[in-house]
Amino acid sequence: MKLIRFGEAGKEKPGVLIGEKRWDVSSIVTDYNEAFFEENGLEKLKKALESNPSLPEVADTVRLGSPVARPSKIICIGLNYVDHCVETGAPIPTEPIIFFKSTTALCGPNDDLVIPKNSEKTDWEIELAFVVGKKASYVDEADAMDYVAGYCLHNDYSERAFQLERGGQWAKGKGCDTFAPLGPFMATTDEIADVNNLSMWLTVNGKTYQNSNSLNLVFKIPYLVHYLSQFMTLLPGDVISTGTPPGVGLGIKPNPVYIKAGDVIELGMEGLGSSKQVAVAYKK
Amino acid sequence: MKLIRFGEAGKEKPGVLIGEKRWDVSSIVTDYNEAFFEENGLEKLKKALESNPSLPEVADTVRLGSPVARPSKIICIGLNYVDHCVETGAPIPTEPIIFFKSTTALCGPNDDLVIPKNSEKTDWEIELAFVVGKKASYVDEADAMDYVAGYCLHNDYSERAFQLERGGQWAKGKGCDTFAPLGPFMATTDEIADVNNLSMWLTVNGKTYQNSNSLNLVFKIPYLVHYLSQFMTLLPGDVISTGTPPGVGLGIKPNPVYIKAGDVIELGMEGLGSSKQVAVAYKK
Repeated sequence: MKLIRFGEAGKEKPGVLIGEKRWDVSSIVTDYNEAFFEENGLEKLKKALESNPSLPEVADTVRLGSPVARPSKIICIGLNYVDHCVETGAPIPTEPIIFFKSTTALCGPNDDLVIPKNSEKTDWEIELAFVVGKKASYVDEADAMDYVAGYCLHNDYSERAFQLERGGQWAKGKGCDTFAPLGPFMATTDEIADVNNLSMWLTVNGKTYQNSNSLNLVFKIPYLVHYLSQFMTLLPGDVISTGTPPGVGLGIKPNPVYIKAGDVIELGMEGLGSSKQVAVAYKK
Repeated sequence: MKLIRFGEAGKEKPGVLIGEKRWDVSSIVTDYNEAFFEENGLEKLKKALESNPSLPEVADTVRLGSPVARPSKIICIGLNYVDHCVETGAPIPTEPIIFFKSTTALCGPNDDLVIPKNSEKTDWEIELAFVVGKKASYVDEADAMDYVAGYCLHNDYSERAFQLERGGQWAKGKGCDTFAPLGPFMATTDEIADVNNLSMWLTVNGKTYQNSNSLNLVFKIPYLVHYLSQFMTLLPGDVISTGTPPGVGLGIKPNPVYIKAGDVIELGMEGLGSSKQVAVAYKK
């Protein structure tokens, strides 16, 4: 299945994407949130759809929200592509680097990117994200895929000055509002034949900056589930983003390239669709 | 008012503490969560209590949970006491250092501290925490106190090896389950005459390790609200912990002291009550 959420920001309803058509499943499901995943909602929804219920169609013009509701956490993996370490001048990690993104950063896949006040170094990062399907604590790597509900396209926007020049941890540059456009949809794991071989691309104003494949991941999803669950409990619906390949603005030589108001950022991943954000200046 | 939540973990009900007595207000209020703070719940609860409703008393023996429901985020400030910087060998920050604690770490004030699997360096950190009362984005320092609902005692447990020796950011050592005992209660701002002059203490097995006062904070609450709101939107019910004074186990010379199973950690703050955690080994 491909899960979508549609409608006005903050009032999204759950839906499914079948082929190119969107269907409203709010008569079957409340939302794609912690309770949904915890209570085996995916299986129930699948069964309900098999009985061919009459569902309202959702017009293509309706806004998409994040395909999952606001999770308890968005965890990101830093420097998880070898080439990306090289471009940022960082050593290749011997174990995963993890950080949180404020969940208030979550937004729809095609929502405007709001460049924060006083930002001069807003940057893009295409990433393969996955959604946790059940409560995970001290999970063995061999069992880890039982804890994964599905996959999404994610753009882990990052303000490099906030992240790297303002002291201490990366949190300041990762969680600004609209810095986590997720989707267009969450594909359940059965939809993706090989999650370790998905091509991905990102363009800014039509010029390709990122062009890679998930086979270049240093630490892969089962290991990440195992690893993260040693340090904290992952809850159903949590979003884990696996890191970005080379080609971020920060890494461009001799001069880094950052996002300006009016720029158009487009990205896509094999099997996970594409998204498009237009950058706008912050306005109160 | 002093807000408490009581009952079985995960099924807590809201209550208030009046003098030494606890009262069940679940007939008035659903929970102390984002919606409660957002919809002016404090004012409504206060009004409801002024009419002297008949409320069930809650026995002293009933477990206390965190005084606020699981928030969208727990943000902590690092190295926010000058003396604590000195003891950890870190420079005094020129702007606040911020990091997230996984919200799954949240627990009741007197719940057992579970020492994580493979932990050898679990450490304590008494902290003054505050709770956000309304949505905050780009808030001026002069207006910041309008965004604060109240204050709580917090023990920001930290696994120093996970935090400092496992690569990258601090997230790994801060968010283990039971690493954020909050409470016993949230005091509304009017209950605390001067939040910048609260004495605080922490003992382990009866020996005092931390003994300080909030007047030693480098960055105070109004500045923190202003500062954090430049980087992300704070939501009603979010918990911000302002940092720990000197006396953590990591800083003890010549040999750091860490928590072992059986240790009893007690802490208290002027006007915010006290809490007690017994350390236990992780058991599946």
